[in-house]
Amino acid sequence: MAVAMSEDRIWTAALIVIGDEILSGRTQDRNIEQVALWLNLQGIRLAEVRVIADRQEAIVASVNELRARNDYLFTTGGIGPTHDDITVDAIAAALGRDVVVHPKARAVLESYYATRGGLTEARLRMARVPDGAELIENRMSGAPGIRIGNIIIMAGVPHIAALMMEALSGQLEGGRPLISATIGCWVAESEIADILRETEAAHEGCQIGSYPFFREGTVGANFVIRSTDQARLDGCTDDLAARLAAAGREVFRGGI
Amino acid sequence: MAVAMSEDRIWTAALIVIGDEILSGRTQDRNIEQVALWLNLQGIRLAEVRVIADRQEAIVASVNELRARNDYLFTTGGIGPTHDDITVDAIAAALGRDVVVHPKARAVLESYYATRGGLTEARLRMARVPDGAELIENRMSGAPGIRIGNIIIMAGVPHIAALMMEALSGQLEGGRPLISATIGCWVAESEIADILRETEAAHEGCQIGSYPFFREGTVGANFVIRSTDQARLDGCTDDLAARLAAAGREVFRGGI
Repeated sequence: MAVAMSEDRIWTAALIVIGDEILSGRTQDRNIEQVALWLNLQGIRLAEVRVIADRQEAIVASVNELRARNDYLFTTGGIGPTHDDITVDAIAAALGRDVVVHPKARAVLESYYATRGGLTEARLRMARVPDGAELIENRMSGAPGIRIGNIIIMAGVPHIAALMMEALSGQLEGGRPLISATIGCWVAESEIADILRETEAAHEGCQIGSYPFFREGTVGANFVIRSTDQARLDGCTDDLAARLAAAGREVFRGGI
Repeated sequence: MAVAMSEDRIWTAALIVIGDEILSGRTQDRNIEQVALWLNLQGIRLAEVRVIADRQEAIVASVNELRARNDYLFTTGGIGPTHDDITVDAIAAALGRDVVVHPKARAVLESYYATRGGLTEARLRMARVPDGAELIENRMSGAPGIRIGNIIIMAGVPHIAALMMEALSGQLEGGRPLISATIGCWVAESEIADILRETEAAHEGCQIGSYPFFREGTVGANFVIRSTDQARLDGCTDDLAARLAAAGREVFRGGI
């Protein structure tokens, strides 16, 4: 049973989105969704997210709380060259480490900026890491992401964060990916609430989420079944479809 | 000076987005941005956001932490009729209150569902509130939002959350709205980092954020100046524009 238990271990991650621009409403966050989807593929579950301001004490408190209770902690934002980029300093403070210039990051930036005006003091800020950190490659802008302990520090610009995740793909230990199936019905979710509750209760290891919508002038809902086990997922999905059909509902496999 | 201090008081809000569908990446969150923008208009600053799972202990812990240190706490999600809608129960538990059926909410739902199949037990779940709560109108689906103490409980479906905010507009005490101005340049932010830092330092009560982008094959950045005071905002914005122009940069008022 030890193997089975190991397979059943759920690996979790937290994400801290660092940025006044999200809290002010200026910028629509795009990182939560893409980090969540990428983590699913790594067999890691996004367990919690925080969006916090560019303030050192807020970053330190959240970093120390979330890294302690999750297998991984990701951050996005605040690693550029300007005065409001304080993520590296704040995380180093959280870890009680010095900030140092990483020689390889410096070399990468020197090369990148050789034809772009040279490595200024501001640009050199992007080579600063908490002492002991490793780099995460970023072939787009030169400035690397940073990995230290279970903390992974990424850019806030979504397509650069995506490149950093690409570089990390397959590198992080995880468990079974969370898999899901979707069933849709043109029904008010309140009409089939009992069916959902009873079906979930009958299938251990599966959760059913209900997501109502209003479209084409009428109400409908998609029901998402989630599990880490394909057989359980299929069993629960088939059972839900059968119960909805028995209640006279037309069932759309794959959702509406 | 007492009046000035009162005007300068910053009112803050936290937002808890409750929903496995956001953490799984199935759904792109739309509430953080719209709550942030609406709060700005009310003179309230969105200070922190959490996205948490549909789990009672997670909701209770976050609710009690965030309501204590912010003027207001908003939640979105988990107030529908199905088994995964546990927000009301969790918040009542956080407050140490019973859950009761609100007579007016029941009446609203009875009326709404009179021509839609009647008020079932599942639908009646949407009339349940923590004891002592007030309702927030929602003319779309009948099911109301809930206000109890400094906690405001809203729907997860973005356009229904928007209706609840509309009903609350002008009802919440706030301070001066946070206002902003934007300046854009076709420049790598690393080239003008010193100007940004020095300008911010020279203008008390103003923050400057730098938001780089890559567009039309070249790099640029928008600089957002924020303040609660129009004169300070204008002074800082003009100074930044002048310093950028003096450094030979073309300045785009309003951003690029």
